[in-house]
Amino acid sequence: MEHVTFIPTPDQYRYTFGGAEPVMRIKPQTVLTLWAEDAYGGRITSADDVASAVLDTPDLNPQTGPFHVEGAEPGDTLAIHLVDLTPARTWGASTLIPFFGGLTSVPVSPTLQDPLPERTWIYEYDSAAETLAFNAHGSDFSVALPANPMLGTVGVAPDRREVRTALVPDIFGGNMDTPEMAAGATCYLRVNVPGALFSLGDGHYRQGEGESCGTAVEGAMHVTAIVDLIKGGNSAWPRLETDTHLMCVGSGRPMEEAWRASQVEMITWLGELYGLDRYDAYQLLTQISLCPIANVVDTNYSTVTKIDKRLLPTAPAYGGLHSELRSAAAALGSVNY
Amino acid sequence: MEHVTFIPTPDQYRYTFGGAEPVMRIKPQTVLTLWAEDAYGGRITSADDVASAVLDTPDLNPQTGPFHVEGAEPGDTLAIHLVDLTPARTWGASTLIPFFGGLTSVPVSPTLQDPLPERTWIYEYDSAAETLAFNAHGSDFSVALPANPMLGTVGVAPDRREVRTALVPDIFGGNMDTPEMAAGATCYLRVNVPGALFSLGDGHYRQGEGESCGTAVEGAMHVTAIVDLIKGGNSAWPRLETDTHLMCVGSGRPMEEAWRASQVEMITWLGELYGLDRYDAYQLLTQISLCPIANVVDTNYSTVTKIDKRLLPTAPAYGGLHSELRSAAAALGSVNY
Amino acid sequence: MEHVTFIPTPDQYRYTFGGAEPVMRIKPQTVLTLWAEDAYGGRITSADDVASAVLDTPDLNPQTGPFHVEGAEPGDTLAIHLVDLTPARTWGASTLIPFFGGLTSVPVSPTLQDPLPERTWIYEYDSAAETLAFNAHGSDFSVALPANPMLGTVGVAPDRREVRTALVPDIFGGNMDTPEMAAGATCYLRVNVPGALFSLGDGHYRQGEGESCGTAVEGAMHVTAIVDLIKGGNSAWPRLETDTHLMCVGSGRPMEEAWRASQVEMITWLGELYGLDRYDAYQLLTQISLCPIANVVDTNYSTVTKIDKRLLPTAPAYGGLHSELRSAAAALGSVNY
Amino acid sequence: MEHVTFIPTPDQYRYTFGGAEPVMRIKPQTVLTLWAEDAYGGRITSADDVASAVLDTPDLNPQTGPFHVEGAEPGDTLAIHLVDLTPARTWGASTLIPFFGGLTSVPVSPTLQDPLPERTWIYEYDSAAETLAFNAHGSDFSVALPANPMLGTVGVAPDRREVRTALVPDIFGGNMDTPEMAAGATCYLRVNVPGALFSLGDGHYRQGEGESCGTAVEGAMHVTAIVDLIKGGNSAWPRLETDTHLMCVGSGRPMEEAWRASQVEMITWLGELYGLDRYDAYQLLTQISLCPIANVVDTNYSTVTKIDKRLLPTAPAYGGLHSELRSAAAALGSVNY
Repeated sequence: MEHVTFIPTPDQYRYTFGGAEPVMRIKPQTVLTLWAEDAYGGRITSADDVASAVLDTPDLNPQTGPFHVEGAEPGDTLAIHLVDLTPARTWGASTLIPFFGGLTSVPVSPTLQDPLPERTWIYEYDSAAETLAFNAHGSDFSVALPANPMLGTVGVAPDRREVRTALVPDIFGGNMDTPEMAAGATCYLRVNVPGALFSLGDGHYRQGEGESCGTAVEGAMHVTAIVDLIKGGNSAWPRLETDTHLMCVGSGRPMEEAWRASQVEMITWLGELYGLDRYDAYQLLTQISLCPIANVVDTNYSTVTKIDKRLLPTAPAYGGLHSELRSAAAALGSVNY
Repeated sequence: MEHVTFIPTPDQYRYTFGGAEPVMRIKPQTVLTLWAEDAYGGRITSADDVASAVLDTPDLNPQTGPFHVEGAEPGDTLAIHLVDLTPARTWGASTLIPFFGGLTSVPVSPTLQDPLPERTWIYEYDSAAETLAFNAHGSDFSVALPANPMLGTVGVAPDRREVRTALVPDIFGGNMDTPEMAAGATCYLRVNVPGALFSLGDGHYRQGEGESCGTAVEGAMHVTAIVDLIKGGNSAWPRLETDTHLMCVGSGRPMEEAWRASQVEMITWLGELYGLDRYDAYQLLTQISLCPIANVVDTNYSTVTKIDKRLLPTAPAYGGLHSELRSAAAALGSVNY
Repeated sequence: MEHVTFIPTPDQYRYTFGGAEPVMRIKPQTVLTLWAEDAYGGRITSADDVASAVLDTPDLNPQTGPFHVEGAEPGDTLAIHLVDLTPARTWGASTLIPFFGGLTSVPVSPTLQDPLPERTWIYEYDSAAETLAFNAHGSDFSVALPANPMLGTVGVAPDRREVRTALVPDIFGGNMDTPEMAAGATCYLRVNVPGALFSLGDGHYRQGEGESCGTAVEGAMHVTAIVDLIKGGNSAWPRLETDTHLMCVGSGRPMEEAWRASQVEMITWLGELYGLDRYDAYQLLTQISLCPIANVVDTNYSTVTKIDKRLLPTAPAYGGLHSELRSAAAALGSVNY
Repeated sequence: MEHVTFIPTPDQYRYTFGGAEPVMRIKPQTVLTLWAEDAYGGRITSADDVASAVLDTPDLNPQTGPFHVEGAEPGDTLAIHLVDLTPARTWGASTLIPFFGGLTSVPVSPTLQDPLPERTWIYEYDSAAETLAFNAHGSDFSVALPANPMLGTVGVAPDRREVRTALVPDIFGGNMDTPEMAAGATCYLRVNVPGALFSLGDGHYRQGEGESCGTAVEGAMHVTAIVDLIKGGNSAWPRLETDTHLMCVGSGRPMEEAWRASQVEMITWLGELYGLDRYDAYQLLTQISLCPIANVVDTNYSTVTKIDKRLLPTAPAYGGLHSELRSAAAALGSVNY
């Protein structure tokens, strides 16, 4: 496998899916070693940095990429296997941003209420223990939480000539903000434009499901990924695979629409893998589906439909590609940055 | 503890929360051994029984109860600890009901499309292996799934003199349809009327999160529960506690509203347990929340906000009541029906 | 026609649809002269009366009724023709209620934001000019607005043994809060229980579409109505007819579901009146539908689908009942209270 | 005033807002005479042309433009006064498109139901009577409906570097599909990029509120408009002004979010015009708002908040620009194409 390292200079970040020239062309079966800046663009560095002062910019959630994948054509399926995610800083940050988040009114659904007060939390990252220290502002409560590094954003250029900000999750992937996007997972994305033009970013050292306040423990991330290409494929919405689970991610608004998209995608997948008709697949899914919410804070909400593979007969997806990528990842040995 | 057994005769089932005379008065700290009929009222017994033929009745989802709990006053909190749930039949059933379920149009949001075809699946229950056999209709696929007995419905009489069908989940509990309502869990419900008037029903031998098609593997259930009363308490929406997790269940429509209710309830609870102000609790929840969807098929949707207690310092809820109930349950010895 | 006058004593108000004994039995084709208290129960009488102080009660939106209509059976259609609505006080009131209204977070979809400040506006009613005086609090702006008396609430007992607060609009009518419910309109409601048990209330001297802040210019109302009964009928959701328009009212959440219900109801009605199949009716409706929003503030939102009869060939609904009721109303002569 | 005529050649149509080079640069206070193709790109010409056969293209809803308006800077306000809209063909078309429209499941919120059958209706346009002939397919019903020419789509390039398909309405305008966008109206749009880059299209010979089935009586349109520029301005969402009404258009999903956006925009506008604080404006709006739904069929739904100017003291918006544009339009004399 070819191995490419790319650490963007500040001017090389991109803030959209679609609409940007590729930073480089890569072949399928390339190992990428990348740096992903945090969603704040690194502008929040202490508890004194509040969003309204330092985030007054349209350029949020910088993406590393896009990468043009040779041979990728509309209708193909891109596979991005996350080999390793390692926090690149000794701390992460989370912040209450005025009129942003799941428990405040937001510009697309405004009320006449005042915004919540601004507050920024800095989480020290203990890389030996792999924990993050939460310290309350309003009382003396502290707790060390295990890190759970993930990427908020993985996506390709959209269809229909659209260009979307990196803040939006949709059928092309993007800012899905699911904790399932962690090392060990393979993400499958339908290709919409020649070269696919995929990007990633938005490192989270830890995030709960829902990303309630709108920001995880945000931090720059070292990323190792293997990119591969499946000619054809039948996916519409993003799919994820781990050693133990199959997942589909829907995004939309209201949240039940995101759920429906992820469910129908999984019914399609169950049909591909097991030859079930859609009503049998619907029935089976009813009894085995897991449905963790991903985010309720972005312009579109995202939910995950998730199946434990161990409940079902073995049926390798995409010809067993995930297993192959796991093996290839293992063959890389330990990852250093 | 007093120990009461109640097996309803057919005319003793109730189909609403509120609006029904109690079947009996019990004291706090009573052990209940109950029979709960399935949501079909036992009318589906073979794959030939389709919903449109045998479920043409307003009397769906029969409830066992209501029980008047002595001393329960509005503003108090009822605790219902599920000691044991054991399938009472050798098979369960699930069915596609016209214009009911998560992936069809429904009467409250109609389209002009035709309904899905009707189909009923019978799952044989192997009580030794504790598995349920799924058999596809459209192909010869079969798989044995582990049973996961739970109750779709636990609730009390609503506030404001309302009477709601047992098909609805809301702030009073009801048809929440979450797989979290399993043996080992304690459910806390705010009391709205003197005596609380709680009921339960809707046995599910297995259900995935979301209950996609609208019906789990439905089956009559033997239920052992301990009922206790907390004077006062601060809950609004239903709360659940297990040995490992704290949970709040919100119900509403669209689904993000159910999520918001469950999140704010958990923020309140974190404040009670740890003295966090609401912004610190919001932040902490952002990083540790689990958010499994419960159902996307009832008149209100339900979502769960769930926290792993092991992430946080020990802080017994309600004076450690859940542990006490666990001990009391253990003292009952093995349960027989 | 029989003519009945009923002015409730304070203890005779009811706060639910369903669940209350009828205040009297009436025959079809009865003229009713009624008093309807305002939604505040008359508790707001000056700009100093703020909601949190004087509305701390579950007993809001008092209803006049229920009336048992002799011969009404489930599946029949009740017709309530509003002959006259006359403000019964010399002033009306509107108020910002904490966490209630369309531009604030609400308990079923909470945020962590503070409530809006409380404010009460008193509108003097000039009965000669039929205007209401709006006076701003924060500046010296004043304007006289034409009165547009209407009833927020008209409904029957719900189906499935339910009892709902008078604050809720749903398929049984209730708190639909549409300005279309004015003198000259006939409201058709499907009967769910023997006797129909209809009530009305919630006088509004004026209201815009949407009822943005949650309260119209609320005021006690003199009501003259004629009640009639149609055996059978095909309606599901409430229908309204005036000399110029046909309307269907859907209620639900999110708002598009209310819209869908009202649209499909109108498609059914167009089929009844013109023999159109549902696809032709859908097409015709697409080009002629008016869709004023009724309320976005209640537990369910309500929207109206409205057709100008003058666009279509004459086709009397329900055998021309509306015209007959108009004639009967005219024959009553001028109304005095 | 300068007067520019632009009739696009087929390759000059654009299918996005943003992301396209301007077709020309114009000065503020330019009169434009334009041709707008129909949303089908002229591909539906008879009842035998069904969508699945002839609309299999990503290039739907062709736009005329974009026009670069000299001097327009982000934060300015573009004014587009519609002088005249004249049907450019002798017939219009409307069609049921599989999985598109308000009363079917749609790809972003899929169900497992089959699509509605396809049907295309051709409406002959009688230019003398200005009527459109509806003919049912399933029965022999016919009716002539008055034409009500309007534009479904008017918009500018979006903010944040986004490019959106011409099928989407959002804060930048776009496919709002409101019958209020008719001759005599002035549309105010916030400028997001230098030159504004506005386009228009999607001629409708007639449309009801909601655009239920997803397509109005679609037809190519002769358009005369005057474009002007307001430096600064305070709008966020699109505003409309006619001789009699002020309007704000919100777009989003679920529909209540579109409504909230339009309401808060109007509260801002009332503050600008009358010096009302936001709570007084909220109260006043509650009593005078009209709320016609625009569309419930696009990726975002649109609703209109509308105020009858005649209810309020005279207060010219934008220094009386609408009146000036009306005068300028009148000075053009009769329009010929």
